[in-house]
Amino acid sequence: MKKTTIGVIGAGAVGRVHIKNIMRMPQVRLKYVADPMPEFYNAWAKEMDFPLAVEDYKVIMEDPEVEAVIICAPAALHGDLIIEAAEKGKHVFCEKPFDYDISKIKKAMEVVEKTGIKLQLGFNRRFDKNFAKAHEYLKTGALGDVHVIKITSRDPKAPAMGYFTAPGGEHCSIYTDTTIHDFDMARFLNNSEVVEVFASGSKLINKDKPEITRVDTIVCTLKFEDGSLCVIDNSWQAVYGYDQRAEVFGTKGAVTVENDVFSQATLHTVEGIIGEKPLVTIEDRYGNAYGAEVEAFIKAVQEDTPVLVDGRDGLMSMLIAKAALLSDQENRIVKISELM
Amino acid sequence: MKKTTIGVIGAGAVGRVHIKNIMRMPQVRLKYVADPMPEFYNAWAKEMDFPLAVEDYKVIMEDPEVEAVIICAPAALHGDLIIEAAEKGKHVFCEKPFDYDISKIKKAMEVVEKTGIKLQLGFNRRFDKNFAKAHEYLKTGALGDVHVIKITSRDPKAPAMGYFTAPGGEHCSIYTDTTIHDFDMARFLNNSEVVEVFASGSKLINKDKPEITRVDTIVCTLKFEDGSLCVIDNSWQAVYGYDQRAEVFGTKGAVTVENDVFSQATLHTVEGIIGEKPLVTIEDRYGNAYGAEVEAFIKAVQEDTPVLVDGRDGLMSMLIAKAALLSDQENRIVKISELM
Amino acid sequence: MKKTTIGVIGAGAVGRVHIKNIMRMPQVRLKYVADPMPEFYNAWAKEMDFPLAVEDYKVIMEDPEVEAVIICAPAALHGDLIIEAAEKGKHVFCEKPFDYDISKIKKAMEVVEKTGIKLQLGFNRRFDKNFAKAHEYLKTGALGDVHVIKITSRDPKAPAMGYFTAPGGEHCSIYTDTTIHDFDMARFLNNSEVVEVFASGSKLINKDKPEITRVDTIVCTLKFEDGSLCVIDNSWQAVYGYDQRAEVFGTKGAVTVENDVFSQATLHTVEGIIGEKPLVTIEDRYGNAYGAEVEAFIKAVQEDTPVLVDGRDGLMSMLIAKAALLSDQENRIVKISELM
Amino acid sequence: MKKTTIGVIGAGAVGRVHIKNIMRMPQVRLKYVADPMPEFYNAWAKEMDFPLAVEDYKVIMEDPEVEAVIICAPAALHGDLIIEAAEKGKHVFCEKPFDYDISKIKKAMEVVEKTGIKLQLGFNRRFDKNFAKAHEYLKTGALGDVHVIKITSRDPKAPAMGYFTAPGGEHCSIYTDTTIHDFDMARFLNNSEVVEVFASGSKLINKDKPEITRVDTIVCTLKFEDGSLCVIDNSWQAVYGYDQRAEVFGTKGAVTVENDVFSQATLHTVEGIIGEKPLVTIEDRYGNAYGAEVEAFIKAVQEDTPVLVDGRDGLMSMLIAKAALLSDQENRIVKISELM
Repeated sequence: MKKTTIGVIGAGAVGRVHIKNIMRMPQVRLKYVADPMPEFYNAWAKEMDFPLAVEDYKVIMEDPEVEAVIICAPAALHGDLIIEAAEKGKHVFCEKPFDYDISKIKKAMEVVEKTGIKLQLGFNRRFDKNFAKAHEYLKTGALGDVHVIKITSRDPKAPAMGYFTAPGGEHCSIYTDTTIHDFDMARFLNNSEVVEVFASGSKLINKDKPEITRVDTIVCTLKFEDGSLCVIDNSWQAVYGYDQRAEVFGTKGAVTVENDVFSQATLHTVEGIIGEKPLVTIEDRYGNAYGAEVEAFIKAVQEDTPVLVDGRDGLMSMLIAKAALLSDQENRIVKISELM
Repeated sequence: MKKTTIGVIGAGAVGRVHIKNIMRMPQVRLKYVADPMPEFYNAWAKEMDFPLAVEDYKVIMEDPEVEAVIICAPAALHGDLIIEAAEKGKHVFCEKPFDYDISKIKKAMEVVEKTGIKLQLGFNRRFDKNFAKAHEYLKTGALGDVHVIKITSRDPKAPAMGYFTAPGGEHCSIYTDTTIHDFDMARFLNNSEVVEVFASGSKLINKDKPEITRVDTIVCTLKFEDGSLCVIDNSWQAVYGYDQRAEVFGTKGAVTVENDVFSQATLHTVEGIIGEKPLVTIEDRYGNAYGAEVEAFIKAVQEDTPVLVDGRDGLMSMLIAKAALLSDQENRIVKISELM
Repeated sequence: MKKTTIGVIGAGAVGRVHIKNIMRMPQVRLKYVADPMPEFYNAWAKEMDFPLAVEDYKVIMEDPEVEAVIICAPAALHGDLIIEAAEKGKHVFCEKPFDYDISKIKKAMEVVEKTGIKLQLGFNRRFDKNFAKAHEYLKTGALGDVHVIKITSRDPKAPAMGYFTAPGGEHCSIYTDTTIHDFDMARFLNNSEVVEVFASGSKLINKDKPEITRVDTIVCTLKFEDGSLCVIDNSWQAVYGYDQRAEVFGTKGAVTVENDVFSQATLHTVEGIIGEKPLVTIEDRYGNAYGAEVEAFIKAVQEDTPVLVDGRDGLMSMLIAKAALLSDQENRIVKISELM
Repeated sequence: MKKTTIGVIGAGAVGRVHIKNIMRMPQVRLKYVADPMPEFYNAWAKEMDFPLAVEDYKVIMEDPEVEAVIICAPAALHGDLIIEAAEKGKHVFCEKPFDYDISKIKKAMEVVEKTGIKLQLGFNRRFDKNFAKAHEYLKTGALGDVHVIKITSRDPKAPAMGYFTAPGGEHCSIYTDTTIHDFDMARFLNNSEVVEVFASGSKLINKDKPEITRVDTIVCTLKFEDGSLCVIDNSWQAVYGYDQRAEVFGTKGAVTVENDVFSQATLHTVEGIIGEKPLVTIEDRYGNAYGAEVEAFIKAVQEDTPVLVDGRDGLMSMLIAKAALLSDQENRIVKISELM
């Protein structure tokens, strides 16, 4: 089996999900993991017989054997890392979001274009079997023309306080970090582009913490070029689990996507009929999707075919996220064209 | 058993649902039905052994035996009919919406207040077992503080062309006729009042009919005083049936309300696992709720207790509907306070 | 509307369900209710404006105006009452089971045949929307040839001690009183006749009551003429509600029938995803089916068409029940032909 | 990480599922695969970078580095292979069934006892998350005393004709090959032992093939020592997928286990509400369970703890299977004690 040699930049939570998946793929040789703080990664890696981390990601960039890199570094560094890798002729799989800086995104897209490398963005939910099936119904025409899309994404637990001081500064909001998945999903589940955004957020989970000013619960409405509509709601804290649902409603019917749950066992008692809760951790819920997106990327590299989630998908989702943030801040409808 | 003597004004589709239900209630004596075009009603009534219609509703108003009236006339006449009945000392059950004219609504509320009669508005969905259970979970505290409400109402079939020329004129829109149910539901499923509305509609079902200008597919976002949020989506045409769902998400959990379906039989074949569709007609889906609301009204009359859906509920839902219409027309956020 | 004049014999629990339903049917005039202990019925009847009971059922039998009778008397009297009514030229709707005495059943069938009256047996579950849909899938060929039928019937609460000393004597067992519904259902959900029965019962609910000897939990296997198989399980006590399910599996697929529940509301909490329990009372669960079977009977009478559940259905279900009882007692397979 | 060195004997369908799983386990070193016809295995193994097969399983038996063997050879050879491995001091994970020969099973159990090696039987369904959850509810007491167990196992596609001439001769029947999983499941989902068996089979799928005499559709009733009852139904051909369900009903409630399906997407159309079908292949459906059982075995070996499915479980399931076969052949109830 042909093996593609890769390096992973960033060995945090998502990085490790990728590393674990990659180690099971016979078509990939993971040569390096790079992380500025390898001490947080190496004990686990040693236990798992996985590659130990180098501190300097330049080792990966400089090694001509490395054909592709997987970027799991902080989002604010994505654009620069993509540019650097592309200039070294390495294909890039980059975690979402593309970058917070639109001009950096555009520049990276130019370099990718010029160098001809493959760039795939890490919108893993497109590879989740549930949402992929909804997309399939869209593409086969089973839904007819799309009229309304509904997306619900609720995290099981609000991020730790530290999250609010992480790199990203003013742009690191629920819209650019969490809802951006849903903005990409909205585009994945429709055949039209977003033209208008209205977003309204509230600080509800952290109501009693004056030191936090960011909203944690939002609803967002998108209007597409063809008049179809999308409603997204997000929360950072659903006590019953990681709530990830979607629905596409069209002229011929609708598709609904429900949660993956722990098991198909249901308890029937005098208290009620008690089913299992949604899966909680990102690895349980989206572990397979993380694996599938990397396999698709490697396939695109090995067979020289287009990637399934490209730079433009990364750009559009960030534009919508920025429009949403602006809409919430100024309490008005924002057109995507204002930000282009 | 004590019997309350009533008259029904208006024997159209909804009127007949009420008449049929009332004829089964031992606690009610239906003395009259009034309709300006009795020829459309009387054949059915004769077959069912139900009271024949009188043409002039004044017969009901003038008869001192009639203790209560049920108003199923066109919405634009509601306010005047309520005032007239109240002045005759008759209790009133009035179909939704209250009226399109806010000043008429306010005047009717004053007369009701002054005469001391009972006025119940026909927001029947509050009496549907599914939504009633969601409300119960809200009231028992099982959901904690409400953060997000989601409501989906889709009709199985768009109204006939005639609908677009019915009395009501400019105010007869999807917001005042259909979404008004959802605006009431949003208030029923929360403990806070609506302060801000954003609505966005598209003409999608009737895309190819230039003679129709009204939108038929809408999404609407409500913000409540306590910061909680609500998203509503409506369509006049869901090919798979009458789609009526809701969801309330709070700090302690969520309640979801799914559709009532034709039966619990599921077919498992090589094509897929095929469940039954949602109930289609208003009588199938909400027949019981229509009965329950009238029984509650009669109980309030007989026992002199407060009604469960009062004039203020009728006023608030119409204010929200007007705000939504304005929001859609002017593509901006509208505050309820602007219309008060 | 044409009205058929009827009398009801027996005003116990099931009798009242019928009486309540009948009072809502414009096509029926309920002239009499007969019950040997009217004092237990009349207060309720007076409150509901329903006919008061006469003590002697002969009043019904002797009145030439009465076209049809509904028999809700104890099962041991069914055969004799049917014969008496038939000889008076009255159509008969008789509650299940037909009778415990096979020779009495056969004699009644002869009299029915000779007099030409309509006799319908009260296997109401055939008229339940869920099981009726499964039957429809069978008849339209959607299931192909039937291979396996599964039926689960569990009562929410074991009958009171008094049940064990009620008329019926030795024949009054779970097989002849409860499972008989399932034996009829098995025949309703297949195109072949039962030839062999194996039943195994245990006394589990009443394990600690030595004074009770009857089994309360059973499984029963039926083999049909064409080789298809059926498994039935019964319990008199399911703490989570009235559990009524069935499944038919064939060459082209399967149909499963799940329980009717209180509402479509589901609570999602940190404890689990909690759905509503199955409906509990016979009136909640099968009220509509009781109404539908009587409407079908009246229709057969008024239009002179065949009844949908006839004497042979009553005979066959009792033969299977007796075979099951014998199988359990002698711990062996029993052929239906042994009892014919 | 500590690594246990193992060899796999038999590289057929189930063998490969194990090999694929094992290659992903950092705690295992797969040194050998043995198969008498390596040409059917080696191309795949080479592609996957997996160990190539040796022809003679003795290589595994003779290598002192091999600590444990996984036996996936034909069932008729299981007993002898277990004995041989045990005598070489190697731990054994053996696919189901234990063996068709009861005396061979007993001899193997003696050798295992004497040598002190670990022997785990491959009843993988115990490790499936759905059935494991049902077992957990049983063990935590959530169900109270068990009254009735229901198990449905239907294969998506009947085995090829060749199956009917495979090693195993007269004993290779649906009871010993397929239902044996359910017999083990029945014991796993109860706290009592089986004492009596009644089985009834029909040749329905292959009705038109006179050359086949074996039954392909069966129902089987088990009675346990404490009076609780179990019904199992099997079919070798469910056109809608691999149908694997179970239910345990007790004094405090019930647990139902439904199928794993392809995705949580549901299509709502004018034809009906169409959900996804059950997973079809053994690897899709039980791939995780196959992995989990081997991980549990390796854990028992490394930590010297008892295995979760032992020789007695293998013996009891085969005794029940033989009793079922006899019951079907002689159309009578068979006691387990007859076969001991």
